[in-house]
Amino acid sequence: MVATREYKVIGTRPIRPDGADKVTGRAEFGADIRLPGMLYGRVKRSPLPHALIKRIDVSRALALPGVKAVVTAADFPPAPDISTPLGEQGGPSPLRYQRDAILASSKVLYVGHPVAAVCASDPHVAEDALDLIEVEYEPLPFVQDVREAMAAGAPILHDDLKTRAPAPLAENLGSGPTNVASLTRFARGDIEAGFKEADAVIEREFETSMFHQGYIEPQNGTAYWNKDGRLIIWSSSQGHFMVRSSCANLLQLPISQVNAVPMEIGGGFGGKTLVYLEPVAALLSKKSGRPVKVTMSRTEVLEATGPTSGSYMRVKLGAKRDGTITAAQIYLAFEAGAYPGSPVGAAALCSLGPYALANTQVDAYDVVLNKPKVASYRAPGAPASEFAVETVVNELAEQLKIDPLDLRLKNAAREGAPGPFGQPLGPVGAVAVIEAMQSHPHYRSELQGDNRGRGVAMGFWFNAAGVRSVSATLNPDGAVGLTTGNVDIGGTRSSIAIMLAETLGIAAEDVKPHIVPTDDVGDTGMTGGSSSTFSSGWAVYEVGQELRKKLVERAARIWEVPADQVEYGDDGVLRGPNDAEGKPRSLTFKQICSQLPRTGGSISAAVTVQRQGNAPAYAGHIVDVAVDRETGKVEILRYTAFQDCGTAIHPSYVEGQVQGGVVQGVGMALTEEYVWGPDGRMLNTSLLDYRMPTALDLPMIDAVLIEVPNPNHPYGVRGVGEVSIVPPMAAIQAAIADATGVRLYRAPMSPKVVLEALVDD
Amino acid sequence: MVATREYKVIGTRPIRPDGADKVTGRAEFGADIRLPGMLYGRVKRSPLPHALIKRIDVSRALALPGVKAVVTAADFPPAPDISTPLGEQGGPSPLRYQRDAILASSKVLYVGHPVAAVCASDPHVAEDALDLIEVEYEPLPFVQDVREAMAAGAPILHDDLKTRAPAPLAENLGSGPTNVASLTRFARGDIEAGFKEADAVIEREFETSMFHQGYIEPQNGTAYWNKDGRLIIWSSSQGHFMVRSSCANLLQLPISQVNAVPMEIGGGFGGKTLVYLEPVAALLSKKSGRPVKVTMSRTEVLEATGPTSGSYMRVKLGAKRDGTITAAQIYLAFEAGAYPGSPVGAAALCSLGPYALANTQVDAYDVVLNKPKVASYRAPGAPASEFAVETVVNELAEQLKIDPLDLRLKNAAREGAPGPFGQPLGPVGAVAVIEAMQSHPHYRSELQGDNRGRGVAMGFWFNAAGVRSVSATLNPDGAVGLTTGNVDIGGTRSSIAIMLAETLGIAAEDVKPHIVPTDDVGDTGMTGGSSSTFSSGWAVYEVGQELRKKLVERAARIWEVPADQVEYGDDGVLRGPNDAEGKPRSLTFKQICSQLPRTGGSISAAVTVQRQGNAPAYAGHIVDVAVDRETGKVEILRYTAFQDCGTAIHPSYVEGQVQGGVVQGVGMALTEEYVWGPDGRMLNTSLLDYRMPTALDLPMIDAVLIEVPNPNHPYGVRGVGEVSIVPPMAAIQAAIADATGVRLYRAPMSPKVVLEALVDD
Repeated sequence: MVATREYKVIGTRPIRPDGADKVTGRAEFGADIRLPGMLYGRVKRSPLPHALIKRIDVSRALALPGVKAVVTAADFPPAPDISTPLGEQGGPSPLRYQRDAILASSKVLYVGHPVAAVCASDPHVAEDALDLIEVEYEPLPFVQDVREAMAAGAPILHDDLKTRAPAPLAENLGSGPTNVASLTRFARGDIEAGFKEADAVIEREFETSMFHQGYIEPQNGTAYWNKDGRLIIWSSSQGHFMVRSSCANLLQLPISQVNAVPMEIGGGFGGKTLVYLEPVAALLSKKSGRPVKVTMSRTEVLEATGPTSGSYMRVKLGAKRDGTITAAQIYLAFEAGAYPGSPVGAAALCSLGPYALANTQVDAYDVVLNKPKVASYRAPGAPASEFAVETVVNELAEQLKIDPLDLRLKNAAREGAPGPFGQPLGPVGAVAVIEAMQSHPHYRSELQGDNRGRGVAMGFWFNAAGVRSVSATLNPDGAVGLTTGNVDIGGTRSSIAIMLAETLGIAAEDVKPHIVPTDDVGDTGMTGGSSSTFSSGWAVYEVGQELRKKLVERAARIWEVPADQVEYGDDGVLRGPNDAEGKPRSLTFKQICSQLPRTGGSISAAVTVQRQGNAPAYAGHIVDVAVDRETGKVEILRYTAFQDCGTAIHPSYVEGQVQGGVVQGVGMALTEEYVWGPDGRMLNTSLLDYRMPTALDLPMIDAVLIEVPNPNHPYGVRGVGEVSIVPPMAAIQAAIADATGVRLYRAPMSPKVVLEALVDD
Repeated sequence: MVATREYKVIGTRPIRPDGADKVTGRAEFGADIRLPGMLYGRVKRSPLPHALIKRIDVSRALALPGVKAVVTAADFPPAPDISTPLGEQGGPSPLRYQRDAILASSKVLYVGHPVAAVCASDPHVAEDALDLIEVEYEPLPFVQDVREAMAAGAPILHDDLKTRAPAPLAENLGSGPTNVASLTRFARGDIEAGFKEADAVIEREFETSMFHQGYIEPQNGTAYWNKDGRLIIWSSSQGHFMVRSSCANLLQLPISQVNAVPMEIGGGFGGKTLVYLEPVAALLSKKSGRPVKVTMSRTEVLEATGPTSGSYMRVKLGAKRDGTITAAQIYLAFEAGAYPGSPVGAAALCSLGPYALANTQVDAYDVVLNKPKVASYRAPGAPASEFAVETVVNELAEQLKIDPLDLRLKNAAREGAPGPFGQPLGPVGAVAVIEAMQSHPHYRSELQGDNRGRGVAMGFWFNAAGVRSVSATLNPDGAVGLTTGNVDIGGTRSSIAIMLAETLGIAAEDVKPHIVPTDDVGDTGMTGGSSSTFSSGWAVYEVGQELRKKLVERAARIWEVPADQVEYGDDGVLRGPNDAEGKPRSLTFKQICSQLPRTGGSISAAVTVQRQGNAPAYAGHIVDVAVDRETGKVEILRYTAFQDCGTAIHPSYVEGQVQGGVVQGVGMALTEEYVWGPDGRMLNTSLLDYRMPTALDLPMIDAVLIEVPNPNHPYGVRGVGEVSIVPPMAAIQAAIADATGVRLYRAPMSPKVVLEALVDD
């Protein structure tokens, strides 16, 4: 562990502010809301993977007693130019795609695609009404394999889709209708020269399934379209400002006409960075005049919310005998689902992240096909591309007879080397992580027994930053009210309380964080990209500085001395010049707070902070497995996850993030999979059949935190929430190979896959 | 009307931001709240006006199925020194009095005094359980007349009560047990010399009933004592920061452990400046572990919440032949109810407020007796004392044969004359009000018909100021989110939106005010004393200045020019130096707001402001009545109310305040009354029997606004909410005298009183 600054509060493990509410059931998640006169909505979904909508007849549904409204895509308000890109709010998708994803207008593109919605005074009536909505479809041929979707003659999802690609690449793509939404090339150096230098070259191809985030809480959305035209939305999301801007855009409302109220969120992992139900609830509310709540079943979650992309990938690496990797060429084709927008760009940028290589070329294809539109999922895209790269790295090490960690150390990213975006890296933890792995008892231990193997792999994620707004108020009892727009998924309440407490020199328990609606705080980006502790940390640091300044001014006024003679100590004590009797003047934080009401009122401050400079995270995992040769089942025997986490603000949460990421990565590696029937329907739409690892399936995951402070943050924070999901697939692949001698190039490596490989072997 | 500055938004009448919610029923008042697992509480009250509590047995109530908890005064947590004064939070009442008022410990002091409370899963079960709580009382003699309560040998409410009075006055009070909580003398000049100068001296004695505020919404309180020790309270009040501090003090919690959530309030008029049910709900919640809602019936409101004081008063005025009032001597004995604390001090300070007199002496007695503890009620105390003074002024005018308005003009308060606290008055509107009355068609019109009469009277209220906190955030669409801790009773949302819009040079509709819980905004005083528009006006002015400054900095950054070359125009346009092509740089408010997200994020600001300088308000009323000699009923034929309102921010609300005050004053003058039975019980505890004026009883009240700006406020605001309740009793008294020749010296002048006087006459 790298030494960090001495802190008083940072690095301790105070009880979480939301703990009591969550263990007693008082915390209100999206589905818990009840409003007077509230109706219940349900969504009618497509049974076909690809079809034209010829006609929707809602008359029978409307005639059912208790039904209050039915909406279809025709109920979206007119928009000036339906194909105008969203601009500032959300990337390249045109408004038309966004609306069609919420409620299909002319076509359905996957089983589960919403076509209509109904609300009724009772949820069962709403359910019954779904069957009374008559939709006439004209079925179309469909495609669900990414390579087939890219092939000539494939069924085309969007007649007007053109491949977005730079000119020279675009020329090779042909001019007909396509499912390839974009092609991007990331290149550095000269790969041909690099491969010529190489003593060993290995090329492999890989496939991965779609994987779902598997959050416990299904999507939900409740809306009330007020009679004065204001829209209020309650939902669980990774950012209610996103809910606000998305709904304002979809429904063509001025943004301030929408108030998005954050409910507690039962997991998101990237899957709650989009709206699904909120605009539907809004349209139903507008039509019925009543508040409307819509929630998803688990089947709807799995069929119709965004998992991460399935992929087809090729990786070719060349290395010299000494282990220097001389060239890397990568081909990534990612499933975007029904509309453009896979995380293939991030996958490409991260694919070689742990390394500083001279010659690289990554081609990234974003491909639409008849599956649900993908969403973000923890380090979006990186688990797949790094699975492929790390597997080839492990094979290179084997072929060159170099210890796989030595090989990685030789090529590791270091300060000053070009980072994923080309800029030189700051202080990074790749080397520290590898060295910690090498010296760890797990790596030095002997693995005993048959069919057991050990694997290692690394992971990289760049970590993002976003805008954050907070306001803070000092109470007479010395407690600080802290208002934020940052939803708390992984412990934001705790981490911002700790960082503000550190800034003010007070106890973490004396900061009371509250998450408030969009109406009541400044713009705040989503909890995503491992940005929250970094960005909200900056915000509370700055609001803390404001409070310190105002406290200095107040103390100066109380003491009747110039403000520049008063100092705010990091111990939370204000000190001024000696008084008339020669005694030193001082006031503790609690003392001055108790005097605020009589000396000008409470002190408040509000800031909006938009700082860049979140620094990348590196992870290295060591895993031991046992393979059952009769069933193909892989058991995780021991798992140690190392991570460069910057300063660990609340180490328990960081460990939790590391462990959670590993578990999801293990699920991708071994058991989770989208299984498709011949009719294009997902077959395993329950958590019994979509098999995520449970506590019973896993040993305790050991988390080893490597604290390499980020110099771009007052408390050295770098993002911690994502990178730990990246290494498991490759590490487990290597461990299976070590145990069995068989190398697998797809995920999941489910019992069936392992068994077939062992039989073929 | 006095000319005021030119404004763009101030003085217009935009639609109220809370209008749609209130007319559609969506607005949530305290009783509307529903929480999962919520229980319903009811309060057991004393049937006796004065008794010792010998025993309370709750066992039978607890045994009733559905009952979850019963609480009594014994459930209050221990306090270090139960007789410690409250200090900063709430005046002189010791904590013991405050707790005993919430739940009686050893004694009950009035019919309706709470002795226990119960909560159950059903409100009817809770109601039934009340009868199962057995309370054994030892009845004591009781006293309900203020003069009897002051007399030797009167039943004593508090054995340990000592009269708080300055030394020379205290000496005359005797040393035995007393019901006189305090005696205060306000004196100026030499009244003996003054009366010697007088050509006419008139002395009269007066009585007034207790009067209730008659808010539509009964008191309510819902509480959840969270498992982590935090207490959340939802209630309708005139200030949720008061709810927070009162509950923290009563329950001995650190103030930040309490979050008070403001519900909409259905009228307060001073009556909701205290807690009644919130601490009871909190204790029930702590004991039951569940959220508990307690609401009052109308009978409970009338029996057991605080009206304004009943009074006994004597007024002696002397004047020279030319109308100069040479001396005033006043005796005020005010009913405090069961615990000390009547508004007799304010009554004394206001009694001569419309005038600048050389020689005055006012003695003010605060007296406890066996009636509910009084609370504030619109211009607390002033209606009674000014009824007495104004009546004698009218009689003086009659005796001296001077027009009553000329007499008032001669003695009127003017800039530079000593104000009620002795300090010189700033620009005030007394003269402007009198002159406007004199030139008004109503005063100049002839009153025709038998038994008809006209009366005039004036009123004075000093207007208060308090601490206010607001925060504001700019949205990309150019709307400003404005967060306040100031509850909206009489249009605060509108007035602060207008004043912030004026400050920023934007439309009122582009400011979106929201009232948030104590957790989410800085300290904010109560809506009371006509302080809100003044104090919150200062707060939004200052937050507006902060926003302007930050917008100037942002524009400078966008234009890459020094900030001191950018100006924020009062038209909401930012102007900078010419650009490279010589074109003037400018950005409207909406333009720069739309650029915020891409240029550093939204802009927010938070301020806490504690400014003094609210300026007094003067009112003058003209009323025509018809008296039915057969029934004694007085009909209001025409009513014109003049008021010095400072700048009228939203004139419709100001007119509404004037009209509302008049109506309540008419109720005091004619129909409202606490009628007591021989058993000490109030007999008329419903709104059928406690007779407030309705729209059918009244003509349209004409409101004439006299705008004399307050120089201590950026927009010239002075308080407008209270003074209009002051003149009606005296004006109507004079009109009845004009119609019948009979002068009445008590209020209400109900049909019975009028008829008896006419018969005696």
